[in-house]
Amino acid sequence: MLIDCLGTTEEFATLFSDRSVLEAMLRFESALACAQARLGIIPQTAAASISAVTADNFDGTAIAREARRSATVAIPFVQALRSHADTDFVHWGATSQDLIDTTLVLLLAQSRGVLRSYHERLSASLRKLSEEHKGSVMFARTLMQPASPITFGYKVALWYGGLTRSWRALSQSFDKALLIQFGGASGTLAAYEERGPELAAEVAKELNLALAPPWHTERDRLAALVANLGIYTGALGKIARDVTLLMQFEVGEVSEAGGGSSAMPHKRNPSNSCVAIAASTRVPALVSAYLGAMVQEHERAAGAWQSEWQTVAEIVSSAGSALAAVAGLFESLKIHPERMRANLDATHGTVLSEKAAMSLTPKLGREAAQRAVADAIEKVHERRQPLENILNINLGSAEDYLGSSEVFRRKLLEDLE
Amino acid sequence: MLIDCLGTTEEFATLFSDRSVLEAMLRFESALACAQARLGIIPQTAAASISAVTADNFDGTAIAREARRSATVAIPFVQALRSHADTDFVHWGATSQDLIDTTLVLLLAQSRGVLRSYHERLSASLRKLSEEHKGSVMFARTLMQPASPITFGYKVALWYGGLTRSWRALSQSFDKALLIQFGGASGTLAAYEERGPELAAEVAKELNLALAPPWHTERDRLAALVANLGIYTGALGKIARDVTLLMQFEVGEVSEAGGGSSAMPHKRNPSNSCVAIAASTRVPALVSAYLGAMVQEHERAAGAWQSEWQTVAEIVSSAGSALAAVAGLFESLKIHPERMRANLDATHGTVLSEKAAMSLTPKLGREAAQRAVADAIEKVHERRQPLENILNINLGSAEDYLGSSEVFRRKLLEDLE
Amino acid sequence: MLIDCLGTTEEFATLFSDRSVLEAMLRFESALACAQARLGIIPQTAAASISAVTADNFDGTAIAREARRSATVAIPFVQALRSHADTDFVHWGATSQDLIDTTLVLLLAQSRGVLRSYHERLSASLRKLSEEHKGSVMFARTLMQPASPITFGYKVALWYGGLTRSWRALSQSFDKALLIQFGGASGTLAAYEERGPELAAEVAKELNLALAPPWHTERDRLAALVANLGIYTGALGKIARDVTLLMQFEVGEVSEAGGGSSAMPHKRNPSNSCVAIAASTRVPALVSAYLGAMVQEHERAAGAWQSEWQTVAEIVSSAGSALAAVAGLFESLKIHPERMRANLDATHGTVLSEKAAMSLTPKLGREAAQRAVADAIEKVHERRQPLENILNINLGSAEDYLGSSEVFRRKLLEDLE
Amino acid sequence: MLIDCLGTTEEFATLFSDRSVLEAMLRFESALACAQARLGIIPQTAAASISAVTADNFDGTAIAREARRSATVAIPFVQALRSHADTDFVHWGATSQDLIDTTLVLLLAQSRGVLRSYHERLSASLRKLSEEHKGSVMFARTLMQPASPITFGYKVALWYGGLTRSWRALSQSFDKALLIQFGGASGTLAAYEERGPELAAEVAKELNLALAPPWHTERDRLAALVANLGIYTGALGKIARDVTLLMQFEVGEVSEAGGGSSAMPHKRNPSNSCVAIAASTRVPALVSAYLGAMVQEHERAAGAWQSEWQTVAEIVSSAGSALAAVAGLFESLKIHPERMRANLDATHGTVLSEKAAMSLTPKLGREAAQRAVADAIEKVHERRQPLENILNINLGSAEDYLGSSEVFRRKLLEDLE
Repeated sequence: MLIDCLGTTEEFATLFSDRSVLEAMLRFESALACAQARLGIIPQTAAASISAVTADNFDGTAIAREARRSATVAIPFVQALRSHADTDFVHWGATSQDLIDTTLVLLLAQSRGVLRSYHERLSASLRKLSEEHKGSVMFARTLMQPASPITFGYKVALWYGGLTRSWRALSQSFDKALLIQFGGASGTLAAYEERGPELAAEVAKELNLALAPPWHTERDRLAALVANLGIYTGALGKIARDVTLLMQFEVGEVSEAGGGSSAMPHKRNPSNSCVAIAASTRVPALVSAYLGAMVQEHERAAGAWQSEWQTVAEIVSSAGSALAAVAGLFESLKIHPERMRANLDATHGTVLSEKAAMSLTPKLGREAAQRAVADAIEKVHERRQPLENILNINLGSAEDYLGSSEVFRRKLLEDLE
Repeated sequence: MLIDCLGTTEEFATLFSDRSVLEAMLRFESALACAQARLGIIPQTAAASISAVTADNFDGTAIAREARRSATVAIPFVQALRSHADTDFVHWGATSQDLIDTTLVLLLAQSRGVLRSYHERLSASLRKLSEEHKGSVMFARTLMQPASPITFGYKVALWYGGLTRSWRALSQSFDKALLIQFGGASGTLAAYEERGPELAAEVAKELNLALAPPWHTERDRLAALVANLGIYTGALGKIARDVTLLMQFEVGEVSEAGGGSSAMPHKRNPSNSCVAIAASTRVPALVSAYLGAMVQEHERAAGAWQSEWQTVAEIVSSAGSALAAVAGLFESLKIHPERMRANLDATHGTVLSEKAAMSLTPKLGREAAQRAVADAIEKVHERRQPLENILNINLGSAEDYLGSSEVFRRKLLEDLE
Repeated sequence: MLIDCLGTTEEFATLFSDRSVLEAMLRFESALACAQARLGIIPQTAAASISAVTADNFDGTAIAREARRSATVAIPFVQALRSHADTDFVHWGATSQDLIDTTLVLLLAQSRGVLRSYHERLSASLRKLSEEHKGSVMFARTLMQPASPITFGYKVALWYGGLTRSWRALSQSFDKALLIQFGGASGTLAAYEERGPELAAEVAKELNLALAPPWHTERDRLAALVANLGIYTGALGKIARDVTLLMQFEVGEVSEAGGGSSAMPHKRNPSNSCVAIAASTRVPALVSAYLGAMVQEHERAAGAWQSEWQTVAEIVSSAGSALAAVAGLFESLKIHPERMRANLDATHGTVLSEKAAMSLTPKLGREAAQRAVADAIEKVHERRQPLENILNINLGSAEDYLGSSEVFRRKLLEDLE
Repeated sequence: MLIDCLGTTEEFATLFSDRSVLEAMLRFESALACAQARLGIIPQTAAASISAVTADNFDGTAIAREARRSATVAIPFVQALRSHADTDFVHWGATSQDLIDTTLVLLLAQSRGVLRSYHERLSASLRKLSEEHKGSVMFARTLMQPASPITFGYKVALWYGGLTRSWRALSQSFDKALLIQFGGASGTLAAYEERGPELAAEVAKELNLALAPPWHTERDRLAALVANLGIYTGALGKIARDVTLLMQFEVGEVSEAGGGSSAMPHKRNPSNSCVAIAASTRVPALVSAYLGAMVQEHERAAGAWQSEWQTVAEIVSSAGSALAAVAGLFESLKIHPERMRANLDATHGTVLSEKAAMSLTPKLGREAAQRAVADAIEKVHERRQPLENILNINLGSAEDYLGSSEVFRRKLLEDLE
């Protein structure tokens, strides 16, 4: 949709479309019915007719409209399914939350695959880029001011490190969160007498999800998943912000293929970065909406739970949108080492002021050394001469003051695979 | 859509649909072209052919897909419009943000009407309910424990007061925010030489919006609007929370017509309240996303601005969803004064403990008075006898200890019209 | 304190110190007692001894420790006051929330004065700066890329506009929120029989606060105040972000006096801007904590209300910290119009691409005109020649393409006083 | 302090006090100096005199005041330390962020121990309580309405499960986040030439922290820690909310020892629960402030980073406050199984409606069965007779309809140790 097209991608829009939601709901009800039939809880014929129903049979809009009356999609959906399957054994012994939560989990399982493929593309781009530019020297920027030199390869490796750790944490939280919800009316599976756990195990197997006791109002596992999506989006936003900064006309160290302007033909805008930054302004807030909604009453919440589908879908879509944008960005990003060099040269060596001051300190004492360097820097700006000339010491080149950049770069790329 | 159907209503879903967004965008471009033609900036024929284009001409999905490339819907939309209108004078001298922001404002202007009609319904219900129950005595609840008596009519008047003040503030922020965005590429309207302000005034008149200098990266007026939507939603959430509490089986003082359960035929769930509470868990977070995005770079932001359409649409839709639910709630809510009375009686007068202690203090001193009442209350619970019997003083009835409930109730209903 | 010293100032730390809080609590209890004595509700001697107690009499730490037991500072404070004043008529007929909320309001009233004096300083600086630089031409930056020219004076006027409107809205919300809380146990003032409203009016007069019916769980007015603090902080954050961007080494259009580095003598960091941006990352979230806490149960909330003192104090302190920083920033900010000019020159006229394309369109048609300009821009970068030479048209200077900058600038400065 | 005493505890206030912060900063500088002396980078005497300086030497307030000028506590602290230690080799080759981040990590390491001891107390209480009440039958509550029966022991086990999983996740994030920050001016440790990694390893060992390449603007590990604190607080808030609900006068199934009222001697307020709920309204927002601040510029952020100390300290303190409150709560909580039974009886068996409907369905078909039960329930309320009498079927007791409560309860207590 136009209104939110910068906050999702076609893949995620499809994943959370009515059709996809209906299919996931049907998967749950069908898995439940089949498992029940296998255990002799409902007739085989009932399971067969339930499994035969497809998403085509449903009018999503009508169900959505009805849902507001009972504050859940489950009631009108189950009613429609019962009518389509023509059996009383639909949703037999289950509760709305079993259906709603497991459906969400099934959609999350699908999301994982989409996210993973983008992550792998991006991850490969970053590794490659870091290797290519392990020798591209630039000045670092702290508080947005020039600082001692680094390499662009190291900068990229730091991005890669943040992203890789965040992905790994996200991946673990997927492992933990992809489990069925199945507790029946009050989380006891009482409708199945003592056979609840056995049935639950069958349903989980059928859906290829993990098994756990009901977790109706204990949302910690989904909370960890959405929080990790938030952290991952933060790591993406950091990269995108850096790109917009490096791509400024006055800096010019990288350039996105970029988008145009409706008014100015000369413009080349950092469109992908903008899309990623947009997500990173929204997702932290959405994560807080989820965390705030963890305070759920008793055995099923009155309000907080009902907010979750939408919040989770938006978090996944926004994170996915940011990821797709950043993955795309690196497939067309141009790097300009010559501008890195030119910007470095323009500092006339002042970015080596730490080195200068430390080398003078043993002789002059710290205070005098600092003062000497500071005075020299004033002159650098007046005279546009190199700092080492004015100080009359040998500071060497930026290449000589890279410290352990390369050690750390390799560590970041190697350790984390 | 199913995934977010509890967080919007059909009206708001329609309002933010592709068709509606396209129509609003067309309104801006048409108003701009007509004003320009009137001032002789573009040919009349160009304005005519631009105005003749309708939303039917556009493929929203295709535009949405394209939009990610330039990080704005404006570029592909204007391109398509140019082709449909077959003139070069589309969007003449304007910038993407003029179109995007004014479109949002036009949608907000429409939202206002929808919200107002629900608010008026709800407001009338609350006034009526307060009048009807100005004599329905109940105990107050502080920290969720019984406190001195109030009337249900007063309780409703307090809800009404919060809602009415919030609405008024919201209404004022609509007045301030419903203005055109029109600045051209850099906010100078340079493309129109010295005629920018005159043209801007014409466009504003055409769109029935207020006029102001460009506000590309100054978002305070929209921020105030979304914050006031957040406050209004908070006022609704408070009412809904109270209803869920009053409707508990053990309390039983009110009942929503309510929704059913997929498992238990005896259930009557507070569906409307749940929908409203769900909104009130999401909207504060979304407001923070908007406020956080106020830190916009220079003359057009790289990321923060691009997040706004979606965030604003969700805030409006969620607030609207909560409002529709609470308005609906009060059209079917049943009040049970007899349960209020029964609950009051079950306290055996202990909710008059303040009165008891204050009347004993002059005689016994505060400490002894407090102790005497506290001891008596223990006995009340053991013996199930009225507090006044055990203390051997006359405490009167709950009706006698309503203080200024009625004065305040009237003040709340009267002052605020 | 060290842990939060970047998030407050000494003035705000003092304002929310134990001493200041105790004084405000004493003001409430004293005003209450005096008003009661005047109406003959308690003895004059009781009021006199209550009014005689000073903050020195209290051990803030001990009260803070005790407060956790009853989830309110009020209980241990009132107990201590009763003992210091040696009368039973302390807090007579009042409730904890009357004391806690009115104390907060009194502290907010003090905050207002501090904020106002900083705002006026900042406001004056911005007006002056805008005037001084109404002729300083620079290129605008949209999506962080060069755009058509503006003046620095206009840029400052836009900052001024956002800030002035936000301040005015904040100011109005102070007017509405600075009112007493006074309702007694359940909001009925029953302890005073029919004299509640009269007493309330006296207390309000005594405290120089407005009067309204009790608003124990209706938090809309405080919510509007904190939201407006959030918006005001957003306006400050926007300015600070722009300053950090303009102050980049490669841009160099402004410079903060700035702070040093612990490692590099050449560094001049945008310290004030950093402090303001830090606030603008925290305040939106804190506003959402307040809005989320508006869902308060019945006549006094169990948890949400208890979170407010801290949240409100942090919002005020953070906003105040940002404001003090930005006010300080502009008292030492240096502007470099020569760098603005140099940056402009470095674009070789490409920032006039809109003008070029619009002037060619009537002749060539839009598509060809856009293509011609885009091709020319490629050559500009290769040959480092002005766009107008390559296009062989007269584009004039940046000064000639400022449109209505000056009109809007004056409008922003004049309209809003 | 009074203003925030409900949002922290004395232990956490001490932990984030100036003294404690100074001590942690000294630990870092001392560890750095000792490691450097060991490697021959600075003289042993310098290390000795640095290590000899204690927190008593510093004026926290003066440093806090100075800190605003450079937007960091590090600059004035290092300056003061240099003067106290009387050597130029203080902070030799390090950067402000090394000191600031490692200090935060050291404080977090201390927090972990305090949190752990409370968690263990609470955990033990919950296990014990669950065992004691494995036979205490009550009705469940879904959407705050009565649902099929559970046991209180199972309810407690569900709380325990959420809390235990959240703690484990938190614990793992502590493991990952407790590492030194050490990168020097630009994250290259260039000041130590090729000896950076070796020195870093020594510093880490000295501080008993893990080792990793610099992570100046990659905040994912701290983000995961604060997010997990948010999730843990959510799990606590859920418990506290349930307690406030169960403790309502009309429900009466549990009671907190609780706090009193300043007005009403009969009140027993759920003070501990309120403190925990207050935290759970603030922490999600603070987590979003942290996540939002992950978008940090280049090699050291201009603003976002500077907000972190305060945000993290507040999250830890709030989580700790909630935990201390809930741990305290369960040490005095009284359980009233007789009220659980009485509330159950008051439903006249309607909470077995699922069982009734499922048993009638095979005979009557689903629709007729549902209708029969619904009609019967109406009569139950009119006649106050048991559902099974009216339906004329045998429904058995609530004890007979507990399903797998006990199986799940044991699983929750056993699996998770």
